[in-house]
Amino acid sequence: MHDEIELKFLVKEMPEGLHNYEVHELKQGYIALGDDGSEVRLREKDGKYFLTAKSAGNVKRREAEIRIDKKDFSVLWPFTDGKRIEKLRYDIPYAGHVIELDVYSGKLEGLVTAEVEFESAEECAAFVPPAWLGKDITNDKRYKNKNLSRTGVPIEI
Amino acid sequence: MHDEIELKFLVKEMPEGLHNYEVHELKQGYIALGDDGSEVRLREKDGKYFLTAKSAGNVKRREAEIRIDKKDFSVLWPFTDGKRIEKLRYDIPYAGHVIELDVYSGKLEGLVTAEVEFESAEECAAFVPPAWLGKDITNDKRYKNKNLSRTGVPIEI
Repeated sequence: MHDEIELKFLVKEMPEGLHNYEVHELKQGYIALGDDGSEVRLREKDGKYFLTAKSAGNVKRREAEIRIDKKDFSVLWPFTDGKRIEKLRYDIPYAGHVIELDVYSGKLEGLVTAEVEFESAEECAAFVPPAWLGKDITNDKRYKNKNLSRTGVPIEI
Repeated sequence: MHDEIELKFLVKEMPEGLHNYEVHELKQGYIALGDDGSEVRLREKDGKYFLTAKSAGNVKRREAEIRIDKKDFSVLWPFTDGKRIEKLRYDIPYAGHVIELDVYSGKLEGLVTAEVEFESAEECAAFVPPAWLGKDITNDKRYKNKNLSRTGVPIEI
């Protein structure tokens, strides 16, 4: 279990040389989305299967993950119907951090976001984003993956 | 995965010869309780560990269970804090069915309920409960285990 401190951004323009970075294909869905903000997520990443629990909260949340096998994943996956996300995730090293650039597909085609995780609140506060990152959407609930999975791409004004 | 059709009752008086029936010690907690009625539950039963997904709904719900090991159970259990239930479950054969008699302990001490699962809606409709069963609480949301786990024993008027 660990505490999660992260920032999330819209992406102004795609960073150069994207094909040079590590990329992962992610398929995920939510079995239950708690009214207190808690959630249980299934994720397939590079042929491995995970179940993740997240506690209530926004910037700082508890999170824990267990590995499950393909059979158990298949048993639970139908429960994520209508609450699914597919995306490519690029891992981009930047100033001692890793920026995770998420390029969504399926019903979220066209959306690109980026996340950075931090070890401490101090590290988070000291972070200066690169120029290609746009609006800070850390506290914009519409961009939480669980909400994107249910309601689609938010309309920016 | 199976569809769950069940009835739930309060218990007017304890059936005779309770010590003759099979009994299980259940400890369970909810990681996430969805605003649509979906849920993810952890359960320890007789030294085995399970994770169960339930879909939205009331009398008829989809349900699936996977077995997890003690280590993974321990990793996820903290996420059920404030949403836990402990009970003894007696399996009582009755008229071709099994009545599950739940005797709660901990903060739900004093509460006793009973559940019967059915293969079909016809079977469910034909069920005549024994005299020791009381009020039908199948549709009383307060008695759902997930609600009991958060709010305690309902006050009957």
